Amino acid sequence: MSLPKPYVVRTGLDEILAGLSEGDAFPPERELALRFGVARDTVRQAVHELLVEGRIERRGRGTVVSRPKLVQPLSLKSYTEGAQRMGRVPGRLLVSCERVTVDAEITAALDVAPTARVMHLERVLLADGARIGLESSYLPLHRFASLLKTFDPTTSLYAAIRERGVVFGEATERIETVLPTPREAGLLESTTAMPMLLLNRRSVDTDGCPIEVVRALYRGDRVAFEATLTDR
Amino acid sequence: MSLPKPYVVRTGLDEILAGLSEGDAFPPERELALRFGVARDTVRQAVHELLVEGRIERRGRGTVVSRPKLVQPLSLKSYTEGAQRMGRVPGRLLVSCERVTVDAEITAALDVAPTARVMHLERVLLADGARIGLESSYLPLHRFASLLKTFDPTTSLYAAIRERGVVFGEATERIETVLPTPREAGLLESTTAMPMLLLNRRSVDTDGCPIEVVRALYRGDRVAFEATLTDR
Repeated sequence: MSLPKPYVVRTGLDEILAGLSEGDAFPPERELALRFGVARDTVRQAVHELLVEGRIERRGRGTVVSRPKLVQPLSLKSYTEGAQRMGRVPGRLLVSCERVTVDAEITAALDVAPTARVMHLERVLLADGARIGLESSYLPLHRFASLLKTFDPTTSLYAAIRERGVVFGEATERIETVLPTPREAGLLESTTAMPMLLLNRRSVDTDGCPIEVVRALYRGDRVAFEATLTDR
Repeated sequence: MSLPKPYVVRTGLDEILAGLSEGDAFPPERELALRFGVARDTVRQAVHELLVEGRIERRGRGTVVSRPKLVQPLSLKSYTEGAQRMGRVPGRLLVSCERVTVDAEITAALDVAPTARVMHLERVLLADGARIGLESSYLPLHRFASLLKTFDPTTSLYAAIRERGVVFGEATERIETVLPTPREAGLLESTTAMPMLLLNRRSVDTDGCPIEVVRALYRGDRVAFEATLTDR
């Protein structure tokens, strides 16, 4: 019995990867097609899977073995703490910070008037300088307008909020997978064919008053989430 | 100032969707390209985004508005309980149930000898008859071999495990996004271009003894995860 070709190719690629280290060159598709005696398209599909899984990545004209994914704990801790736990240097690039009008869903979630303007902070998240996510935070103006006047957008927003004496009580999160828009793909130095993890979060303080609504998009090839569940 | 075309098209499609209900026909790409005065490729990209988001789906030769995603709580509850909470009828199709040898990672996670065979139960998860996930459960033979002899694979495995007096203590989960292999796409009646949510879980009982290792693949267009986080 002969095994299906996609299976043979994938197993072969996994074996090649097992013998390589982070940053090593990965063989070109042409060479792999010859080695496995299959069509270029069969190799391309398997290589695309590895790219999406973050096992390999394009660098210049070649392909190299990636570093392991950044595993973010699902918790009330900040991105900074999650990255540092994995020995990565967190960073942020400011995209925009402005007062905006938003849809009814966001004003309701922030418990402000439907016509109220809110603060919108959009930042690219970095780990060791690599773009791994795009975070859009919406904050009620009446609570955080003064904070944002002095806030350094390359630092942790959660730390700044906590410094004002606000205590995070609870967050509800929804996790999905989506494809990025061309704009999002550009900001993440990725493509519109790369699946992303989309995290929608609403955080409230210990009195149940809204702190933020966040829409965060993480590169699926660079980030994983982790949770520990107990029967509470 | 003219807005970017992909943005105009996406906004237009969202407006069309807002006026439609579940099961309604969605206009064909050709018609949409004419209506927005853009190239067919621009429409195709936006429609693909909607397909991946699960807002629309292919049905026969046409495209219709989807029902909302099944939101699965990240908890120690079973798939059955999650589906029922949303008013969906859960179901399962047996793919295979056999004793297999597995890699060192799984035997270590199950705390059995590296050469030990384990039970492998593979099932397609259904919600109201639609295929939404593919679940691969690995169980230690010494604990559950007799259970699986009498187990009805179309029912809840967690319920059967609990009926034997086993109490779930804790589970660690890792969530990623991947593309399915051709085999997985086939079993899920999807395509290898549809991003999936991959959930890897290890559950232990209240004594810390391993119950299962699960690799579950959920259709990204049909499933979302939800978690409530508190500062414990």
